[in-house]
Amino acid sequence: MSEHLSDTARKTTLTPLLENGWSLDETRDAICKEFRFGDFIEAFGFMTRAAIWAEKWNHHPEWFNVYNKVQVTLTTHDVGGLSALDVKLARKMDGLAG
Amino acid sequence: MSEHLSDTARKTTLTPLLENGWSLDETRDAICKEFRFGDFIEAFGFMTRAAIWAEKWNHHPEWFNVYNKVQVTLTTHDVGGLSALDVKLARKMDGLAG
Repeated sequence: MSEHLSDTARKTTLTPLLENGWSLDETRDAICKEFRFGDFIEAFGFMTRAAIWAEKWNHHPEWFNVYNKVQVTLTTHDVGGLSALDVKLARKMDGLAG
Repeated sequence: MSEHLSDTARKTTLTPLLENGWSLDETRDAICKEFRFGDFIEAFGFMTRAAIWAEKWNHHPEWFNVYNKVQVTLTTHDVGGLSALDVKLARKMDGLAG
């Protein structure tokens, strides 16, 4: 089961993400990032790989795509905010986006 | 090359879409629809099939997904509004969503 990120975990795990293009959502406890790719094939290829990880971990993003752009928001609905699952999926997405 | 939909084409081609869950965007010349599926695998499966058609036709949707929900907006940026390509992709998506 996921739990709301503790203050300590926020400092240690969120900080590197915030330094790597993620930002805190202004309206709720969530993190967001816009990924840009060369074209639609690359953008949707990224989404496809991320989708399989998301399903495997049973933790799904909110995301918007238009052509080469993918805007991602991560939060954990079950806990009403950020959990370790969001950090894990954010790191995976950064890795997949290469 | 795509052209802006004529008034006649709007009547004949848009009407069936508007009767099938599509609606006109209130802020610009575009059509929107929210598709709902049983789960994420079905929703992303739909997106994957639609993505390949979109790329094949070089006409890409704006779309948002969270879990089993896919919100689609179609418009033709090159013509600043709806074209026959939007109608074609909307019909295809309806077919893929079954």
